Amino acid sequence: MGMDVFLSRNRSILLAYDQGLEHGPTDFNERSVDPGFIMDLATAGAFNGVVFQKGIAEKYYDGQVPLVLKVNGKTNLVKGEPIARQICSVQRAHEIGARAVGYTIYPGSAHESIMLEEFGRIQEEAHRLNMAAIAWVYPRGEAIKNDTAPEIVAYAARTGLEVGADAVKIKFTGDVDSFRWAVRSAGKAKVFMSGGPKAPSEADFLKQVRGALDAGATGLAVGRNVWQSSDPLKMARVLRKLVIEDCSLEEALRV
Amino acid sequence: MGMDVFLSRNRSILLAYDQGLEHGPTDFNERSVDPGFIMDLATAGAFNGVVFQKGIAEKYYDGQVPLVLKVNGKTNLVKGEPIARQICSVQRAHEIGARAVGYTIYPGSAHESIMLEEFGRIQEEAHRLNMAAIAWVYPRGEAIKNDTAPEIVAYAARTGLEVGADAVKIKFTGDVDSFRWAVRSAGKAKVFMSGGPKAPSEADFLKQVRGALDAGATGLAVGRNVWQSSDPLKMARVLRKLVIEDCSLEEALRV
Amino acid sequence: MGMDVFLSRNRSILLAYDQGLEHGPTDFNERSVDPGFIMDLATAGAFNGVVFQKGIAEKYYDGQVPLVLKVNGKTNLVKGEPIARQICSVQRAHEIGARAVGYTIYPGSAHESIMLEEFGRIQEEAHRLNMAAIAWVYPRGEAIKNDTAPEIVAYAARTGLEVGADAVKIKFTGDVDSFRWAVRSAGKAKVFMSGGPKAPSEADFLKQVRGALDAGATGLAVGRNVWQSSDPLKMARVLRKLVIEDCSLEEALRV
Amino acid sequence: MGMDVFLSRNRSILLAYDQGLEHGPTDFNERSVDPGFIMDLATAGAFNGVVFQKGIAEKYYDGQVPLVLKVNGKTNLVKGEPIARQICSVQRAHEIGARAVGYTIYPGSAHESIMLEEFGRIQEEAHRLNMAAIAWVYPRGEAIKNDTAPEIVAYAARTGLEVGADAVKIKFTGDVDSFRWAVRSAGKAKVFMSGGPKAPSEADFLKQVRGALDAGATGLAVGRNVWQSSDPLKMARVLRKLVIEDCSLEEALRV
Amino acid sequence: MGMDVFLSRNRSILLAYDQGLEHGPTDFNERSVDPGFIMDLATAGAFNGVVFQKGIAEKYYDGQVPLVLKVNGKTNLVKGEPIARQICSVQRAHEIGARAVGYTIYPGSAHESIMLEEFGRIQEEAHRLNMAAIAWVYPRGEAIKNDTAPEIVAYAARTGLEVGADAVKIKFTGDVDSFRWAVRSAGKAKVFMSGGPKAPSEADFLKQVRGALDAGATGLAVGRNVWQSSDPLKMARVLRKLVIEDCSLEEALRV
Repeated sequence: MGMDVFLSRNRSILLAYDQGLEHGPTDFNERSVDPGFIMDLATAGAFNGVVFQKGIAEKYYDGQVPLVLKVNGKTNLVKGEPIARQICSVQRAHEIGARAVGYTIYPGSAHESIMLEEFGRIQEEAHRLNMAAIAWVYPRGEAIKNDTAPEIVAYAARTGLEVGADAVKIKFTGDVDSFRWAVRSAGKAKVFMSGGPKAPSEADFLKQVRGALDAGATGLAVGRNVWQSSDPLKMARVLRKLVIEDCSLEEALRV
Repeated sequence: MGMDVFLSRNRSILLAYDQGLEHGPTDFNERSVDPGFIMDLATAGAFNGVVFQKGIAEKYYDGQVPLVLKVNGKTNLVKGEPIARQICSVQRAHEIGARAVGYTIYPGSAHESIMLEEFGRIQEEAHRLNMAAIAWVYPRGEAIKNDTAPEIVAYAARTGLEVGADAVKIKFTGDVDSFRWAVRSAGKAKVFMSGGPKAPSEADFLKQVRGALDAGATGLAVGRNVWQSSDPLKMARVLRKLVIEDCSLEEALRV
Repeated sequence: MGMDVFLSRNRSILLAYDQGLEHGPTDFNERSVDPGFIMDLATAGAFNGVVFQKGIAEKYYDGQVPLVLKVNGKTNLVKGEPIARQICSVQRAHEIGARAVGYTIYPGSAHESIMLEEFGRIQEEAHRLNMAAIAWVYPRGEAIKNDTAPEIVAYAARTGLEVGADAVKIKFTGDVDSFRWAVRSAGKAKVFMSGGPKAPSEADFLKQVRGALDAGATGLAVGRNVWQSSDPLKMARVLRKLVIEDCSLEEALRV
Repeated sequence: MGMDVFLSRNRSILLAYDQGLEHGPTDFNERSVDPGFIMDLATAGAFNGVVFQKGIAEKYYDGQVPLVLKVNGKTNLVKGEPIARQICSVQRAHEIGARAVGYTIYPGSAHESIMLEEFGRIQEEAHRLNMAAIAWVYPRGEAIKNDTAPEIVAYAARTGLEVGADAVKIKFTGDVDSFRWAVRSAGKAKVFMSGGPKAPSEADFLKQVRGALDAGATGLAVGRNVWQSSDPLKMARVLRKLVIEDCSLEEALRV
Repeated sequence: MGMDVFLSRNRSILLAYDQGLEHGPTDFNERSVDPGFIMDLATAGAFNGVVFQKGIAEKYYDGQVPLVLKVNGKTNLVKGEPIARQICSVQRAHEIGARAVGYTIYPGSAHESIMLEEFGRIQEEAHRLNMAAIAWVYPRGEAIKNDTAPEIVAYAARTGLEVGADAVKIKFTGDVDSFRWAVRSAGKAKVFMSGGPKAPSEADFLKQVRGALDAGATGLAVGRNVWQSSDPLKMARVLRKLVIEDCSLEEALRV
């Protein structure tokens, strides 16, 4: 199956680095602004995959870890109902060496139908080229009051399954029970927790990750909580302990 | 003809399971959230067909009952005039093994023309691949005050016939006489009553089904009234009695 | 020329039956709701052509009279600026046996440019397949105050000529002189009067038809004034007398 | 070069006849409403080219003078920001025998980008088929207060040059000096003055033409000031004197 | 690499001349309105490249300096959220002899997603034809309060990198430190400072250029500050001194 290359013991940690387009370099420091640093970190930290936009992949990807090529994206400068269209062809993602394409869907946006349609086409193209299709599913737009509400997150997960995603990336609901329902709703689509903004403390963040795993998640896609950390490699080791080796929070923190 | 594979004694009961995208997992319980349970139910209940979105079909469809692949869809998170665009290619539906494609048209929506155009193209592609084209026709949008008003339902039925649907799925008008006019309006397009939300009682629901059949309907597409039932298989048997064996309401309830 | 097949003595009466999509079955009675009845009427009444949408043509057309396939259409449920997009491919119309395609343009609509563009493409495709292209030209939208005003009808006629229609279907202006100007404006494009809603009396309707012919029209496309008539075949005979044999109103009424 | 066929002594007078679509038959009289009359006039008046929409060209063009096929157009019934999309393919224009395609761009319209894009594609197609591409450039829309202001006309001329037009058709600014700047701005793109509505007197109109020529224009595209004239052929002779033979206003009026 | 042809000692000065479309001829004087003058200036001034729209390139480009063909553009007449669509095909740019295509993206515009998508496709086409893809990245629209704010310029630079530009053209932030962060954000994409409107004095302008270089820029794309200068060739020599020979401001001014 398409996601196998990203799995260790059926678990996975993806290093996400598409924030440069989504949020701007404000997320970066002098070190993390350099995609070369991230590429090295992905290898040294033994991540199961790295997530790049086309421009980053073309100039920095070295093939040391499997690549998820994010094929749509937007800046956060635009106001109004969110829309991110395809900016990298599936064929080009394949040439660059990607093993999966990533695509963000904003359910609830007035432009939802355009993204669902585009994902539908991209998923089919990706599968024909033996690449997995991963859906970032983020309910958003004026109609969405709380995008981590349990029923909203479960709906996001289900949307990904229904439209054919091999894996969905969704936000954590805040507790294990409600997230378990989201994981159930995703069916055979693997669930990746979205790392989100840097958590107040490492422990807070790791507790969320542990919760997601306990709820049945396959793993997480994480960026800022790793490369904004003072010791990204250590954070990578802690995460591997927690996610891949399935240790308790306490064991993991002992790293 | 394309619909034959879905017929027993010229009648048909389709098990609909596209609610995960259309309404979210809120429609499901611990059992029905699992598409595998539905696939098994379709077989055990001897349904004439099962309705899945692409993602469900790719991961769970086992070929035991004929497949209707729903090729468009939307979430219910979006406000405003409804639009659902194509999210599965007809070619892909064919590869998965579908014998029909399903497509929702919202007449009355400000985006009606986009869906009519898309259905027109999809119908032709489906027929070239020997698949039937079934239209879910749901008048909706600010212009529609009452979507079960007899003249609105008849208009929906007729719209399906005019644009080339082999079968139309429409809501029940509430009484046999007015639904008979809708069936007449559909001409040679077969009419499937939409199961709709779980009825207050089984008897209420079955009375509607009997009414639709008496009005000339071919059958129904039903989801929630089966898999939200405490005994889905028993409900399946009752429905077969009523629809396929054309029994009276009383006989059917005796199951 | 493409329109020849629809002509007798250079005159023509087309039986229009696309009202099921445009207005809904409210236009029909128990008899006329059945497209089979209309197909038989077209043959028995010796009409020069019959106008169907794809769905009707695929299921009921028997080849006894030449077919105009209407390739766009809309419901009347939608409010706002009118738009009807292509819902049948020209290739498919050809396969079904159509000798002409029909397409409605709404000049004055905010979406006018989309329909002009689409008609332009369809006209070229139709001609390549030796089919005529007939434009229903109905000025409509907020900008149009009176769609039977002489200058508006003449503009509609001219629009059809300019964009390459072989024939235009336009509304009657109310008097011979102003309609003569519309016919002049259509140049070599043949002019068909639109039958419109059922007239208060047969005589009223026939007087309009006679007026249109005196103004130079080739004939009319008529639906409701025939099949809502108590004796459709008699009406057909009267119309043939008036239109094809070019009789006076009095002679025609003597049928 | 593509425009050569339209030139005499490096000057040109095009007979424009696309007003039937742009303004409706209100521009015509009993004589000029007939495209056949215009075709004959183009020949008898020795015009350097005639401008038709596809429908007129297909039914009336006789090959006696070079043809400019106008490939987009709109009615004047629509309110709001102007947009005219392509309604004749470049391939079809070529088959009909056109030596140039004409396309109207409305800079300043909210839909400007669609027309610039479309012209870009059409220009390339036309050149591949050895046809010239002539841009009608009319700044219009809410943003344009005065479409004959010198800086607006010069901007229109420049826009045509930048996007690859072989010739631009622009309005006269009112005086030679400011129009000279517009001609300079058009660079190697030839400048045609737009004839515009019937001038108060012949002398007024001819003075404008002389001014445009003195400013460096190649000639003009004229319709109403010729065929609304009481003696169109005489007007044609006067114009040839003025434009092709480069006579003074006085000499030309002596015809 | 695609940008090499535009580099001297890894630095570059491009002569920009797309203002005729973007701003109108108001930017020009009697001399600079002539593209031939600019083409000669590019050669005489030993610029590393010249930036033209298709129309200018087709009629004036002589191959003496490498060509960047600007493939989208808009007028400044349109109000509202900015959008510039493709008006020259990549294939055509290649035939004309371009070594790079230029494309303007307006991040923050309500139409951002259309431009990101279009650039994505164009970049891939350009690379397949061995041309570089240069992104003009100008945050604009109602959401952008200050388009030279350091975080906005850095975001612009990063956007170019993420979407695959070989080089980005961005505005100067006003000081070396903040521009250095923008250059860092652009990663391996080369940074060209946008020349912008004519500076109050030559010294002011050159100080900005020196600042951009000190911050790590590859060079600049300059138009008005050269050809609106009283001595454009002298300005060209000063810029070469500053940019290519990497002299101090004082040394450069000594030319």
